[in-house]
Amino acid sequence: MIKKPGKKQHVKWAIGIDLGGTKIEAALIDTHGKIHDRYRIATKSASGYKAILKHLITTVTIISTKNKLKDYVVGIGVAGQITKETGVIKYSPNLNWHNVTLKQDLSKVIKHPVYICNDVRAATLGEWNFGSGKGCDDLVCVFVGTGIGGGIVSGGQLLEGSNNTAGEIGHMTIDVHGPKCHCNNTGCFEALAGGWAIARDAQSIVLKNKSEGKTLLHIANGKTNNITAKTVYQGFKQHDPLSKELVDTLKKNLVAGGVSIVNSFGPRILILGGGIIEGFPMLIPAIKKGIKKNALGAATSSLKIVPAKLHNDSGAIGAASFAFHEIQHHKKAATKKS
Amino acid sequence: MIKKPGKKQHVKWAIGIDLGGTKIEAALIDTHGKIHDRYRIATKSASGYKAILKHLITTVTIISTKNKLKDYVVGIGVAGQITKETGVIKYSPNLNWHNVTLKQDLSKVIKHPVYICNDVRAATLGEWNFGSGKGCDDLVCVFVGTGIGGGIVSGGQLLEGSNNTAGEIGHMTIDVHGPKCHCNNTGCFEALAGGWAIARDAQSIVLKNKSEGKTLLHIANGKTNNITAKTVYQGFKQHDPLSKELVDTLKKNLVAGGVSIVNSFGPRILILGGGIIEGFPMLIPAIKKGIKKNALGAATSSLKIVPAKLHNDSGAIGAASFAFHEIQHHKKAATKKS
Repeated sequence: MIKKPGKKQHVKWAIGIDLGGTKIEAALIDTHGKIHDRYRIATKSASGYKAILKHLITTVTIISTKNKLKDYVVGIGVAGQITKETGVIKYSPNLNWHNVTLKQDLSKVIKHPVYICNDVRAATLGEWNFGSGKGCDDLVCVFVGTGIGGGIVSGGQLLEGSNNTAGEIGHMTIDVHGPKCHCNNTGCFEALAGGWAIARDAQSIVLKNKSEGKTLLHIANGKTNNITAKTVYQGFKQHDPLSKELVDTLKKNLVAGGVSIVNSFGPRILILGGGIIEGFPMLIPAIKKGIKKNALGAATSSLKIVPAKLHNDSGAIGAASFAFHEIQHHKKAATKKS
Repeated sequence: MIKKPGKKQHVKWAIGIDLGGTKIEAALIDTHGKIHDRYRIATKSASGYKAILKHLITTVTIISTKNKLKDYVVGIGVAGQITKETGVIKYSPNLNWHNVTLKQDLSKVIKHPVYICNDVRAATLGEWNFGSGKGCDDLVCVFVGTGIGGGIVSGGQLLEGSNNTAGEIGHMTIDVHGPKCHCNNTGCFEALAGGWAIARDAQSIVLKNKSEGKTLLHIANGKTNNITAKTVYQGFKQHDPLSKELVDTLKKNLVAGGVSIVNSFGPRILILGGGIIEGFPMLIPAIKKGIKKNALGAATSSLKIVPAKLHNDSGAIGAASFAFHEIQHHKKAATKKS
C-alpha cells in the first residue's frame, strides 16, 4: 500500500525514468518534485532487452556523474504489469517484454536502490505528490492517450489491488453493445474514447464514405491509414462536420466513463491528463459539465475536475516519487526490524 | 477510513439494526458476528419519522432488557447518504428522509453509543468481518436487488470516498446508449441489471407483444404491472422463451458491470449477494465464466467469485460490525488524546 509521503526523507535525489516504447525520458528530481536535470534518448523496442538495459545504465551514469550525486535512488515507470514484491515486469505490451527482471539486472551495475513501477501508477503518484492533487486524500487520475489508464487515491492511499492491477479504468465497460477492445472485452472505456478508438472510427467512416471524409483524408495526405486522433482535431479546427461529430461522440463517451469513476470512487479531485486531453482543449469543460449533470449529486457536490499539471514530466517525476516512497518505506521497515 | 478490526474489543455486544422502508430487522450480535437474539417489526415510511424513531427505541429496549445488557453499542444501517462526522442522514430515498438527525435523537433516549451507516456499506463490513470476505484485504461486494449497491475494501481499508459516497457501483455507466436511470444518468449498471430494470424490460415487451408475453402475463394474473424480476424467474423455470431471453440479457449486463469492477479495483474476492443473485441461482456460474473471459488476465488470475454468506442477516450483522468498529476507533482516539 502506498501512503502519503512522510515529512522526513533521507535521500535527497531521485533519478526518475519514464521508459516508453520509443524513448527513455529521465529527470533528476529533488524531494520537492523539482527537476534539476534531464536526459532523453531514443530507443527501439525491436532492438531488444539488452540494448534498452544498456541505455538505462547510460542514462543513470550520465545524470549521476554530471551532477556529482553520491546518494540517490532510481525509479522507473514502465507500461505493463509489475510484480510488486520483486519488481519483475510480468508483461509490457509497449516493449513486448515478458517476465523481465529489470530491477535485478540494473542493480548488478547501479549500486543504488532501483524501483520499478507501472507508468500510469507513477504518473498518478507524481500528480498526487507534486501536481494537481497535492494534499488531497481522495483523487482519481485519468490519462487519455492512445489508450486510457488511471490511478486511484482513496483515504490517503494509492490503490494497488490484490494483484497490483487496480486502476485499469480504461477497461471498464461503458458500452455493453460496443466494439471489441484489444483486451478482448466489449465496449471498454478506451475502446470508445482512447486515441486508437478515435482513429478507428474516423478511418472506418472515411472508408465507407469518401465524400463525408474528404477533409480528414486531405489532412492525412490522402491515406486513410494516416488518420489519427490528431487528424480529427485538425479537422475539427477546420469546422469539418465529420470531425465535429467524432468529437461530440468522444465527449459523450468521456462523460460516461467519468461518471462511472466519480460514482464508484467518490474522489474530491478528478485529474485529467494525457495526449487526447491536452490535444483537444474543449474536452475538460465538456467533461465537467457532463459529469456534474449525470453523476450522483452527493458525489459531485464538492468535486473538482482539473487538468493534470506535470504534462510530459509526469512519468519521470512520478517514477522518482515512487522511488522516494519505496526507499522511505524500506528504511522504516528496516528500522522497525532492528 | 474503516480498517480491519483489531483483536481487542472492549464492548462485547452490539445491537445491529437494518432499517428498511418496510421493516426494522434487529439482531443482538457478539464480537464474533454470532447472532444471539432477533427482533423484527414492520414499519411504514409513510407514518413518518417520529413513528420510526419510536419503533427503533422499542427495538433497542426490548433486546437490551430481555438480554440484560449492560454495556453495548447500537449500529443502524440505512439506505441513503450519511454525513460521516455527524451521522446525519442527508437523504434516504426508501424512507423519504432529508437531513434527519437520527443519531442525535436516539442518543437522547438510548444511553449507549449509536452509529449510523449506509446499509450497503454495513453489509460489506458484515461480509468482510464475518462472511465470505473474512481475512481478505481486497474485496468488492456487489448486492443486486431492486437496485445495485456495493462496497469496496482495498488494501485492508473500506473505501469511503471524499463525501462518504464511494461504492455507488450501481451507477457506473455500462451502456452509454442505454435507458435512463432513476439517478438521471444513462445506462447505469442498475438500470440494466437491477430488479427494477428486469421488471421494466419484461413489462415493456409484454405490453408490446401479448403473445410473446403470455406466460409472464399468466404468472402475473393477467396484470402487466404485477410482473417483477420474480415473475421472470418463474417464467424461466417454466421454459418460457421470453424469460430465457431476459435472463440471458441480465447475465450479459452483470458480466459487463462485473468486468468494470474487477478491472478497476483488482479485488481478490468478488462477493455477490442480494435478492436477484439469490433468486436466480444460475447467475453466479454465468458471471464467473463471463468475468474470467472478459476481464484482464492479470486481474483475474487469483480472483475468486463467491456468493455472500450472511444473506438476510448481512444488514443487521454489518450494522453491528460498524458499531464495533466505531466504538473501538473512538476509544483509541480518546486514549491517544489523554
